[in-house]
Amino acid sequence: MLGVCYYPEHWPEAWWEEDARRMAALGLTYVRIAEFAWSRIEPDPGRFEWDWLDRAIETLGKAGLKVVMCTPTATPPKWLIDLYPEILPVDPETGRTRGFGSRRHTDFSSPVWHREAMRISTAVAERYGENPYVAGWQTDNELCCHDTAISASPAAHAGFRTWCREQYGDIAALNAAWGNVFWSMEYRSFDEIEMPVGAVTETSPAHRMAWRRYSSDMVVRFHADMIAIIRAHAPGRWVTHNFIPMPETGVDNHALAADLDFAAYDNYPLGRADLALAKSTADEFAPLMRTGHPDFQGILFDQTRGLTGRPFWVMEQQPGPVNWANHNPRPAPGMVRLWSWEAFAHGAAVVSFFRWRQAPYAQEQMHAGLLRPDCTHAEAWPEVEQLHAELSAIDLPAPTKAPVAIIVDHESDWLGQIEQQGRGYNYQKILTAWYGTTRRLGLDVDFVAPGADLAGYAMVLVPALALPTVEAAARLQAADGLVLIGPRSGAKTHDVTIPEGLAPGRLRPLMPIRVLAVETLRPDCPGSIAIGNASYASGLWRETIEPGECTVLGRYEDGAPAVVRHGKVHYLATLVEDAALDAIVAAMATEAGVETTPLNGMLRIRRRGNLTFAINYGAEPAEAPAPEGAEFLLGTRTVAPRDLSIWRAA
Amino acid sequence: MLGVCYYPEHWPEAWWEEDARRMAALGLTYVRIAEFAWSRIEPDPGRFEWDWLDRAIETLGKAGLKVVMCTPTATPPKWLIDLYPEILPVDPETGRTRGFGSRRHTDFSSPVWHREAMRISTAVAERYGENPYVAGWQTDNELCCHDTAISASPAAHAGFRTWCREQYGDIAALNAAWGNVFWSMEYRSFDEIEMPVGAVTETSPAHRMAWRRYSSDMVVRFHADMIAIIRAHAPGRWVTHNFIPMPETGVDNHALAADLDFAAYDNYPLGRADLALAKSTADEFAPLMRTGHPDFQGILFDQTRGLTGRPFWVMEQQPGPVNWANHNPRPAPGMVRLWSWEAFAHGAAVVSFFRWRQAPYAQEQMHAGLLRPDCTHAEAWPEVEQLHAELSAIDLPAPTKAPVAIIVDHESDWLGQIEQQGRGYNYQKILTAWYGTTRRLGLDVDFVAPGADLAGYAMVLVPALALPTVEAAARLQAADGLVLIGPRSGAKTHDVTIPEGLAPGRLRPLMPIRVLAVETLRPDCPGSIAIGNASYASGLWRETIEPGECTVLGRYEDGAPAVVRHGKVHYLATLVEDAALDAIVAAMATEAGVETTPLNGMLRIRRRGNLTFAINYGAEPAEAPAPEGAEFLLGTRTVAPRDLSIWRAA
Amino acid sequence: MLGVCYYPEHWPEAWWEEDARRMAALGLTYVRIAEFAWSRIEPDPGRFEWDWLDRAIETLGKAGLKVVMCTPTATPPKWLIDLYPEILPVDPETGRTRGFGSRRHTDFSSPVWHREAMRISTAVAERYGENPYVAGWQTDNELCCHDTAISASPAAHAGFRTWCREQYGDIAALNAAWGNVFWSMEYRSFDEIEMPVGAVTETSPAHRMAWRRYSSDMVVRFHADMIAIIRAHAPGRWVTHNFIPMPETGVDNHALAADLDFAAYDNYPLGRADLALAKSTADEFAPLMRTGHPDFQGILFDQTRGLTGRPFWVMEQQPGPVNWANHNPRPAPGMVRLWSWEAFAHGAAVVSFFRWRQAPYAQEQMHAGLLRPDCTHAEAWPEVEQLHAELSAIDLPAPTKAPVAIIVDHESDWLGQIEQQGRGYNYQKILTAWYGTTRRLGLDVDFVAPGADLAGYAMVLVPALALPTVEAAARLQAADGLVLIGPRSGAKTHDVTIPEGLAPGRLRPLMPIRVLAVETLRPDCPGSIAIGNASYASGLWRETIEPGECTVLGRYEDGAPAVVRHGKVHYLATLVEDAALDAIVAAMATEAGVETTPLNGMLRIRRRGNLTFAINYGAEPAEAPAPEGAEFLLGTRTVAPRDLSIWRAA
Repeated sequence: MLGVCYYPEHWPEAWWEEDARRMAALGLTYVRIAEFAWSRIEPDPGRFEWDWLDRAIETLGKAGLKVVMCTPTATPPKWLIDLYPEILPVDPETGRTRGFGSRRHTDFSSPVWHREAMRISTAVAERYGENPYVAGWQTDNELCCHDTAISASPAAHAGFRTWCREQYGDIAALNAAWGNVFWSMEYRSFDEIEMPVGAVTETSPAHRMAWRRYSSDMVVRFHADMIAIIRAHAPGRWVTHNFIPMPETGVDNHALAADLDFAAYDNYPLGRADLALAKSTADEFAPLMRTGHPDFQGILFDQTRGLTGRPFWVMEQQPGPVNWANHNPRPAPGMVRLWSWEAFAHGAAVVSFFRWRQAPYAQEQMHAGLLRPDCTHAEAWPEVEQLHAELSAIDLPAPTKAPVAIIVDHESDWLGQIEQQGRGYNYQKILTAWYGTTRRLGLDVDFVAPGADLAGYAMVLVPALALPTVEAAARLQAADGLVLIGPRSGAKTHDVTIPEGLAPGRLRPLMPIRVLAVETLRPDCPGSIAIGNASYASGLWRETIEPGECTVLGRYEDGAPAVVRHGKVHYLATLVEDAALDAIVAAMATEAGVETTPLNGMLRIRRRGNLTFAINYGAEPAEAPAPEGAEFLLGTRTVAPRDLSIWRAA
Repeated sequence: MLGVCYYPEHWPEAWWEEDARRMAALGLTYVRIAEFAWSRIEPDPGRFEWDWLDRAIETLGKAGLKVVMCTPTATPPKWLIDLYPEILPVDPETGRTRGFGSRRHTDFSSPVWHREAMRISTAVAERYGENPYVAGWQTDNELCCHDTAISASPAAHAGFRTWCREQYGDIAALNAAWGNVFWSMEYRSFDEIEMPVGAVTETSPAHRMAWRRYSSDMVVRFHADMIAIIRAHAPGRWVTHNFIPMPETGVDNHALAADLDFAAYDNYPLGRADLALAKSTADEFAPLMRTGHPDFQGILFDQTRGLTGRPFWVMEQQPGPVNWANHNPRPAPGMVRLWSWEAFAHGAAVVSFFRWRQAPYAQEQMHAGLLRPDCTHAEAWPEVEQLHAELSAIDLPAPTKAPVAIIVDHESDWLGQIEQQGRGYNYQKILTAWYGTTRRLGLDVDFVAPGADLAGYAMVLVPALALPTVEAAARLQAADGLVLIGPRSGAKTHDVTIPEGLAPGRLRPLMPIRVLAVETLRPDCPGSIAIGNASYASGLWRETIEPGECTVLGRYEDGAPAVVRHGKVHYLATLVEDAALDAIVAAMATEAGVETTPLNGMLRIRRRGNLTFAINYGAEPAEAPAPEGAEFLLGTRTVAPRDLSIWRAA
Repeated sequence: MLGVCYYPEHWPEAWWEEDARRMAALGLTYVRIAEFAWSRIEPDPGRFEWDWLDRAIETLGKAGLKVVMCTPTATPPKWLIDLYPEILPVDPETGRTRGFGSRRHTDFSSPVWHREAMRISTAVAERYGENPYVAGWQTDNELCCHDTAISASPAAHAGFRTWCREQYGDIAALNAAWGNVFWSMEYRSFDEIEMPVGAVTETSPAHRMAWRRYSSDMVVRFHADMIAIIRAHAPGRWVTHNFIPMPETGVDNHALAADLDFAAYDNYPLGRADLALAKSTADEFAPLMRTGHPDFQGILFDQTRGLTGRPFWVMEQQPGPVNWANHNPRPAPGMVRLWSWEAFAHGAAVVSFFRWRQAPYAQEQMHAGLLRPDCTHAEAWPEVEQLHAELSAIDLPAPTKAPVAIIVDHESDWLGQIEQQGRGYNYQKILTAWYGTTRRLGLDVDFVAPGADLAGYAMVLVPALALPTVEAAARLQAADGLVLIGPRSGAKTHDVTIPEGLAPGRLRPLMPIRVLAVETLRPDCPGSIAIGNASYASGLWRETIEPGECTVLGRYEDGAPAVVRHGKVHYLATLVEDAALDAIVAAMATEAGVETTPLNGMLRIRRRGNLTFAINYGAEPAEAPAPEGAEFLLGTRTVAPRDLSIWRAA
């Protein structure tokens, strides 16, 4: 199904009815509203104006649309900030208070902000919880975008001290856990604890990891409390949240999504490609400029689905040029439809476009909509018409479990930021590389959290699991399938210390090696590993390991072991170039009996139930790897450029 | 005529008389003094010491020199700052107060600073307004250099609120004009208005444009008040100001110059080239290192002349290495003379050198003068001697109107900074590119403000006029000549919103198109346009247009219109490489009956009355495009390297 | 002799005895302790816990080890900061207070900090001054690392005013000396003086130089007072300090070392190479990645020895990967031994490894030790065993005076930062280049301070001596040997003004030239000089000189003099490429009768008494330039890769 984001408060009320009629006529089912409307809902402290919103909902509902209602907490109004300036967050890098004038000018640690956010959420939920036109709820909007998970405010400082007390109980335990004796950093009480900001040189990794966990917990608590309010007032309605790319939240995303019915994602392929590939050469970038990278949407669709294990929404889908990347091209013709189909292939239930009509004012006036500011059709309109027609003709089966699980671990990401050790070390790039390998091999992937049940997966890939819990280690040990563990896994204890007996610490039962040393090399000065007759670059992270009883599968240029195996479990002691990963994972898949479909270039495939989707990001036609006699529901065996084919095996 | 900048307070009084004698002997007419002398004029609060300055003026005047007197407001003394610390400006990027210790440590919004600046200006004007040796006045010094137009002080905050009230009358009008509903940014009163600094993410473009206008207005008001004081006390004397490069003031330069008799410019070709071309390759830069770029002086000479439409001064002319660029080479032999002649070719009345004698101390001790600190002749001395002799032999006619007008629009520049949309978008680079085209075609140019009368120009070039006023649109419509309008013109209303009916809004009567979409591409990944059989790169800004009844002259690679024409008016919907501009402007000139003189390499020509100047920045001789029988007043038909020829048509 | 850094407070007391036994068994003589132990020595204000430290010292001493005791002032505990927050330093760039959480969170200008630092130093010195196991003392730890010499705190502001009063006596003298009239920067009293931070644009060079001197003086005073306390309580014990690389202290290093018995250096070749060569290409960097640059250790060994003129220590020697560079590779096999031998070749008395056992927690848990956290041997262990065996077999003679002196001048370095004039100007790079020339010629070097006695040196090299004192000029004039003076020498007076009569000011008696002008060129756009038939690049600094009665040895591309000679003294008026320096210095050595040994690639030689060491950083064997019949004490005539040979001339 399809949807759209709409802002009745941005347009003359006289336009609403015609807008609603056109939405329905376009085949849209859902319309999301009101996530930035606080100043219109409560224009003065305690004085609510509901009438306009009542009428907007009714107008939309009567046109046959289902409303997705939001809590407006992403944009508290000026009067609230003036009443309670302590709501404003503080930039941890500069110590400067981040002011009013845009959005997300709030501090998750602030008790006042928490109270006010829940107050407005309660008011909205009370008003519309049982409104017949409201089908479900979105909490807030893009939590933590613009780097707002972390604040260094006095409220955050106080909250962190309390959190530390709750975590460690007595200060001696904290000092011991963090190794505070190291530079006489010992505290005599929890009231002495500093935030790890603004020190002369780097603070302790344990200190910073605690700070990241605390900051994440504050967001999770905020979100959980808001969901509880909605559920209390909106019986029978689902609740979701529209995530920014998960790596950018600064939060434990699985915890953040824990109480949701399903997760949603805001999908902007071109903006994301422009920023993520900013250092790429023109030769690398030009083919992707108007399409995005063929794996960058899938990796987040799959992560979004993985947050709850249920079909997800794309709450905001880019419909044309955006305004916020370094450069903002038009999508290639057909891409708006193709990105949408790609979402459905990866298990989407709904794709909703951002936004109905381009705003003629304010920050996003250069951001395309389905309509131009003058109400004429923008470029994406006919693609949405086509998409609706196609969707109506195909019965999408429920998504099925993938053969491959990848463990995604926010704490490994944070560790890589806290203790990078080499400038080339980047957990998200590692995760993306591992995902890319699976996609080039035509493998479907489920992303799972550390500690998830791994039963039923033929293969489990662990790009890094640096601080494994007891549970996560046990789940890995209990995995049915072949396991590939990447470097730095088991590198640390919970408090970011080197495990007794050295790494991989808690993972040693799976992998009886010892990590003796680590080196990181300049990206342009790599060493190599040899696997069989092939040689591959290895440089950004290299562990010297004692292989114990493991079988050695690959070796460094000096002959030391670099890839080892113990039973079902493989360990890769170094970061390597993609070709090495491709070879290792392909060999594992063969052993595991998982069929691979090596794909070149810009074609990707994804299965949903008994359907297979072939998505062609390229400018040239591509041959679909469909079996003999496949029944094509969309497209043909030759997948047109920026097009897709869908088939059912014969 | 020639002049020099002199600091009697820097030297023993015993030296003054000999200095004056040597200035006169060198052929200098004017001597500018006292712009940094506040601490010597008023060493303690309210206690003035005039005697030394009286004697200095008298010494200079008796030697036959005409004194240019200044208000010393660029450098208020420490005691003033200690008395009134609220005078200090606040950096909008960091929120840090910018302190005492150099210059321009003042806030144009501060009522205390305004009062004190006018107090000292009045004192100086009273003392010397009718002094017989004082020929004219310079206000302040290089207003707004070091990014001082904008301050985020409490005074600026208060002033901005007042200014908004004056501009919008009631707060609902402001909210509507700025689109503040967008992210619940609505204000309930003018007292709630924030400065657009320090917010979590970008603030509204309307908010930032208002802030830029406010900041500019404060500088203009300051300047106008100071000029009025001088005029009140100095009857019959002219008043000027020495501008930094106009793009760097952050101010509406035409408004800033409105009350002046003429404008002056401080010309530092090598420092400017080093900074502006910092990213150029060695091959590109080496030929310009000791000369500057052949268009970078002319574009500012022409803009300076355009500020008042009257002959201008070079108040400070670089005489040797400076101290403030990234690298500071010596000028090639002959360049000090050549830059001076170039100024006269573009309509200068006076060229004045900075400075008489190199200071042996303080910030600029590595900045050359006409004399070294030990009073010996520095390198430029013989060039000034030669220049004086040559000037004495040639009677310079009055400058005449050029055939081509270029509209220069500070608000388009600000918009490009506020809403860049693509990292490659830069109004000043666009303006420079359009000017370069005219200069390579041998066309003389007048820069005019939006809204200026365009009668009599055979061609009007509009690189960008993003927020046209009613008057500016009407003037363009009334233009006699052919008009070329560049992309983004008419893109916005006064309050930075998309016009009703889409761009080009107020310019639609001239150019009946609709701008449907805009994209910006990475500079290294351009698309193209085709005009006739030629293809040109197009990328940094590309508009999709509905051409209406226009003739299509050029098309994008996908066939969509990119260059169109409607009557006399051409519209270029995209930023293009120089060669495309050259072709378009050359064709227009042919149609307009304006003679072009295509010039290769480092030679440029400029007419003044019935004289033509050929200026050769190159290291090789160049052939002057002089007609048969031309009478050479200086040089010959072969223009020597780093030399010029002047001829009168036969 | 060998030593190690040990932290008994980091480990269970039960481990100490075995640790001590193993240290002794490895052949270590010294063990440094307690420099970060304040929070364990004084866990609460005024409450000391000595017992654990008493026992640690006794355990080590009884195992036959000599203890190096430290003052723990690099890491004051949290309670001290909470009691006296004014101790914290203020970042001069941002104005932000630099907080607790790492180390060196102290302000040398703070009277409270000075009092507290001396109080704890007194307590420790009283307790252990006469302890029989304590052989000597280290003051503090790595003074001024993390850019802590300079603070912009209120205490620093007050101290600077007092210091200015002491230096200049009356304010008029200061105004005159600094040239404060220039931009009305004159002060009426010392109480008006600002710190040169946060101004609108650059402050006066004199102001900044005074600020650098003041900041340096505060560190020197702190250090001198601490040494005096130790000496008062520790009769007969030596006192040293472990320097970071001297260029990074921001202090007059000779003054800082003045009261020490000898200086020590902390030697981290790989971290240093990674940072210093960050902009090198992969081809340049890869051969050095696991060895460091062959001159980067020697230049600091020689400077460390030069601080006191006595054999020095390496107090901390890198034993494996570190944690703090951008990338942290493992040393090539053999390098830990080789770096240690190189230190002995350059006059080390002791090399001590950092650290005994890798810490499993806190900031440096990724920094290797001699043992891993699990007490097993890390990679360097067998190299230290070998080193101990070799040292035991060779009787090292006392270091002897070198034939070549290089004057190292911190004020020239500061001037280059304060008034860079060209972005390519960098005193430390110049110093490194001149040192590199001597090393490629096989010349041993002593670094001496300006004003040192130069008697007995065959050659004196002066890369830059920008602000020579009367004494320094006199010493140069009295030098026995040939002198080579580099550009910018004599450029300024004490107060950073151009000398009367122009540069080289006080050096004119040695070198009767006048510096008429200076230019700086972009590094990629150099000019050239010709010496004989050879041409060399010249660009980063180029002086136009009047050669007076000097002989001209080299000329710029335009024929102007660039290298001149007057008696024994040569003057190089420009910065040049290495090949030019090599040629000039080689010719001087020939004239001076100093034997050169031109060395290619990665081999270096160093003499110590009658022994010659050939150190091969390269991956290929190299031929030792040993005379016929040399007696090899270690290695052979063919020096193995990453190995050395030592011989005694026959």
